[in-house]
Amino acid sequence: MAALRAEMREQGLAAYVVPGNDPHASEYMASHWCEMQWLSGFNGESGTVVVALDRALLWTDSRYYLQAGIELKDSTIELMRESDIDCPSVAEWLCGELRITNYELRIGVNPEMWSVDQFSAISHQLSEAGIGVKSVDLIKPIWTEGRPAIPSDKLYPYSADFAGETVESKLARMRESLESKVESQESRVKSQESRGYAMIISALDEIAWLLNIRGNDVEYNPVVISYVVLEADKCTLFVNPEKIDSAAQNYLDFNNIDVLPYEAVFEYIHGLKGTIFYDGAKVNEALYEAIRKPTPAPSLKGGEQGANAKNIQSPILVDKAKKNAVELEGERIAMRQDGAALTRFFKWLEETLVESQKSKVERPLTEWDLMEKLHAFRAMGENFEEESFGTIAGYQGNGAIVHYAATKENCAEVKKEGMLLLDSGGQYLDGTTDITRTVWLGGRIPEQAKLDYTYVLKGHIALQTARFPRGTRGNQLDALAKQYMWQAGITFGHGTGHGVGHFLGCHEGPQNVRTDNTPTPLEVGHIISDEPGIYRTGQWGIRTENLITVIPAKQTKATTTEDEWLTFETLTLCFYDTSLIEMSLMTEYEIDWLNAYHVRVYKEVSPLLNEEERKFLARKCAALEVNE
Amino acid sequence: MAALRAEMREQGLAAYVVPGNDPHASEYMASHWCEMQWLSGFNGESGTVVVALDRALLWTDSRYYLQAGIELKDSTIELMRESDIDCPSVAEWLCGELRITNYELRIGVNPEMWSVDQFSAISHQLSEAGIGVKSVDLIKPIWTEGRPAIPSDKLYPYSADFAGETVESKLARMRESLESKVESQESRVKSQESRGYAMIISALDEIAWLLNIRGNDVEYNPVVISYVVLEADKCTLFVNPEKIDSAAQNYLDFNNIDVLPYEAVFEYIHGLKGTIFYDGAKVNEALYEAIRKPTPAPSLKGGEQGANAKNIQSPILVDKAKKNAVELEGERIAMRQDGAALTRFFKWLEETLVESQKSKVERPLTEWDLMEKLHAFRAMGENFEEESFGTIAGYQGNGAIVHYAATKENCAEVKKEGMLLLDSGGQYLDGTTDITRTVWLGGRIPEQAKLDYTYVLKGHIALQTARFPRGTRGNQLDALAKQYMWQAGITFGHGTGHGVGHFLGCHEGPQNVRTDNTPTPLEVGHIISDEPGIYRTGQWGIRTENLITVIPAKQTKATTTEDEWLTFETLTLCFYDTSLIEMSLMTEYEIDWLNAYHVRVYKEVSPLLNEEERKFLARKCAALEVNE
Repeated sequence: MAALRAEMREQGLAAYVVPGNDPHASEYMASHWCEMQWLSGFNGESGTVVVALDRALLWTDSRYYLQAGIELKDSTIELMRESDIDCPSVAEWLCGELRITNYELRIGVNPEMWSVDQFSAISHQLSEAGIGVKSVDLIKPIWTEGRPAIPSDKLYPYSADFAGETVESKLARMRESLESKVESQESRVKSQESRGYAMIISALDEIAWLLNIRGNDVEYNPVVISYVVLEADKCTLFVNPEKIDSAAQNYLDFNNIDVLPYEAVFEYIHGLKGTIFYDGAKVNEALYEAIRKPTPAPSLKGGEQGANAKNIQSPILVDKAKKNAVELEGERIAMRQDGAALTRFFKWLEETLVESQKSKVERPLTEWDLMEKLHAFRAMGENFEEESFGTIAGYQGNGAIVHYAATKENCAEVKKEGMLLLDSGGQYLDGTTDITRTVWLGGRIPEQAKLDYTYVLKGHIALQTARFPRGTRGNQLDALAKQYMWQAGITFGHGTGHGVGHFLGCHEGPQNVRTDNTPTPLEVGHIISDEPGIYRTGQWGIRTENLITVIPAKQTKATTTEDEWLTFETLTLCFYDTSLIEMSLMTEYEIDWLNAYHVRVYKEVSPLLNEEERKFLARKCAALEVNE
Repeated sequence: MAALRAEMREQGLAAYVVPGNDPHASEYMASHWCEMQWLSGFNGESGTVVVALDRALLWTDSRYYLQAGIELKDSTIELMRESDIDCPSVAEWLCGELRITNYELRIGVNPEMWSVDQFSAISHQLSEAGIGVKSVDLIKPIWTEGRPAIPSDKLYPYSADFAGETVESKLARMRESLESKVESQESRVKSQESRGYAMIISALDEIAWLLNIRGNDVEYNPVVISYVVLEADKCTLFVNPEKIDSAAQNYLDFNNIDVLPYEAVFEYIHGLKGTIFYDGAKVNEALYEAIRKPTPAPSLKGGEQGANAKNIQSPILVDKAKKNAVELEGERIAMRQDGAALTRFFKWLEETLVESQKSKVERPLTEWDLMEKLHAFRAMGENFEEESFGTIAGYQGNGAIVHYAATKENCAEVKKEGMLLLDSGGQYLDGTTDITRTVWLGGRIPEQAKLDYTYVLKGHIALQTARFPRGTRGNQLDALAKQYMWQAGITFGHGTGHGVGHFLGCHEGPQNVRTDNTPTPLEVGHIISDEPGIYRTGQWGIRTENLITVIPAKQTKATTTEDEWLTFETLTLCFYDTSLIEMSLMTEYEIDWLNAYHVRVYKEVSPLLNEEERKFLARKCAALEVNE
């Protein structure tokens, strides 16, 4: 901290801001980029540190208040609770508290750690208050000892047999899309001669999708740390050469993909001309600053007027979200593997809890044991690579903590009573899974628990059975999943559904089902989660989650419109705990749906099971009777 | 047309654009401003005429294709069908077709007829194509004969007994809101000294609400053609002096409202300094152009740097939408009057249809007769002033034409068979009503008709019984009203709900229930319509509409959140045609709701009826039995 302040004084900076980001706008970061954690000693996944000359502060959200309180206890860093209504934002604090005592001031940020859009938002706010922003990396000179290297795991080709489309085809499609954008722009600005185009790609899942490559550089997401610049006549991958073995090199050569060192991307971008496309939500400010902008007055050398930078929504993001038939078939295969793993897990859990009650066991069963056991069952599955995120095993009141993460040292004992929420997923070569089931482990079920479980289940069914005209956005469907709990005065604070990648990120855009306004309609091939929940602090958390994909719906005879109709196919294959259902709240339609789903689960998963496991699954999938 | 082209040549204009607007962004316009209709001979309510030197075109939407086709038959004006996918917009046509043959061109528009936002959108598009826009009124010099004068009906004070708030209180509240906006702005721009503020108000319903005045200048909306400029220390009404009798003058004097002639507003605005607020969605471009903008270089006379124009959402719009307790009580009174009128109407209709079948009647009953009769029954009501819009009486296939308007000359005969859609409303001093009921007049009901009616009814009930956390927007609730018909592959093209004013516009913002993204959450006191529909071309239209208002919902015992909860109170009081309900689709909850509503309708409306009418109403409100 003292070293940082010395650097700040030298640069004339009143504050330095370190956000919890990496240069690729990643959800899961390599430890090389955990500058926020290194500087503050706080190990949460989300936070921003502001170091002023006489104070230091850490902003984080309510998920991490407890952890931050403990980890910052012996430091001089003040905790800013950003979920609290009266907590100023980082920009507000800089414009307010810091501004008061400093009239002429500048703050520093490392432009690699901010997306263009984030950087432009904060600079705009600060410049209105007369504060300047300087792009400078002050951590590199001081974090010299013990800084983990950028991972250099091998990258590997991802077969088109899984991806469903060759690199050649993907590149051609993207170039076509960019060319049409260049044309529409040039038709408006007649005077400018056509000078080609390039697109800067920095989101790791977009690169993995575009080039059909995968890697092991970060946890949970099979991506390769790299940049790509796509041009009309070439495609360049900027990556640490150590990551490329001869098979990978052959693959890249075959697909005409040039390779340059990871760090060479800045200089390369500086040399680009014509129209340069970038997605400001993902591409970092340092890449943007590397673009040679036109000078206000014409340059002496004719034609060297720099490049024309255009902020667009990435066409890769848009196309990647619409899974092709091969990707969807892979998802179905992965779901059968996942269903088998979950069946084995729940069978083991039921038996182990009975055992633990009967005999004195060596040591009590914990949430951590459940996480490990579930991982082990998944690892038995064909083409399983890794978990798609850290399993949430929330027993009783812990289930009500939405982002609960038990550790080996700090986890609850699980007994044959009460509620267990289990949210987990796998990365299979065939596809990505993400499923939540909530089950009752034993004892008398409280009436409110049944009501809560049934409100959640009814909403979960209403969303995945929705039928809607093409053009409908996720935020229009959100209330379908909430309408029943809303009638009981209950709601939840997280999104109802997030996009899911194909053997890529478990969270991806642009599709979602949230309350916020969104421009993105749901489209055929989108995969989203359907996961309403109810959380009672100190009592239980209930969440029920399937992955579903948008498919065309048949036109009905009764229709009155020319609209195309869409609906969902449920991908996830795992039974629900029917003991928690309050049958008097269920409609005949819902019961019929649930019975048909259980028939399908048994049919698709049982071939992967042994006789005993099949019996267990058959019992869990037993039909419910319609109440009269 | 020739005269206009002569003017255009003189001004060097390649085209002149005449939109179907007035200077106040009104829904219903005084005939003085019907320039589009006068110029084209087309009498639809919506359209834009573009006159080029060698061609003339009229853009209008699908509601008016038929009418425009007939009315333009003998003219040289080409019809542009703007609802068609391949139809270019006015701006696209100007930038495309017109641009091709004219390299250096300007087009003219009358800035009074464009809102600032509309004008800025089209100028931006045109300037990108190198086309200039000139503000000039070319209709005034040529429409000299037979142009209707601007209406000069008297304005009258609207008692605070109806409005529920005095002018003094409203003005104070608005000034407070504007002052806070000035402060937050000045705190950001430290160098600028405080120089006061003003707000330009041109929307007629905002003026009527703010000053508690009403008038009869346009059809259906009790407003006064005028402008207002609100400043910290005064409030000026710009209005034709003929409109003010001595009682009105006393009222305005008492409330310290200065009066200047209508046309004086431009000069007055030109003299304003400080921060000038305007709502660019409503205020016209001519008013904006009257603001003295700061000159780029400092003026010679120190301090005369002009005014600082700020485009904001009108705080009057926002406050007007949240009805106070007196306004809501007035709505309830108006609804009883409206319910009585509709009861009498439907009783008359039933009896008249029986009569017409029994005996040879003089002349057949028509849609027009129904419209007149309904108006007459409403006119019997206490405090009834006028209809709130032109009644839609759509018999059989005519009901499927969403904006159908029968005329005396052109209307269908109504027989004791088939479906009738009736959408109508009244302006009472107590409040504004808007109701649609669809009824079956006789004969065997087709199965599809019952299904359609029931899908609509279920959605209509789902919306008005929704319970939701504060902060929820209308677009989040839209699918609740559509979910049942969506399952059957049916949807409709109009909004599910529009805002409604209090003895003002039957359509008002910012609240609504539509599919579009909207920033506006529903708030306590908002009135909206709840009107899903199903339209079968050539067969029938079914729409069921109540007005509902947002009220606080009680917190439940089961709640898990600190959120405030909202729900709706149904304001409209009129029975539904239960003969059209397919009972097998109805849930117990829906049947209970409907029975309770019918009990309430009878209880509230019957005291206004005679014995026979009460019997009729009791029969229509008879309880439905829950099906088992």
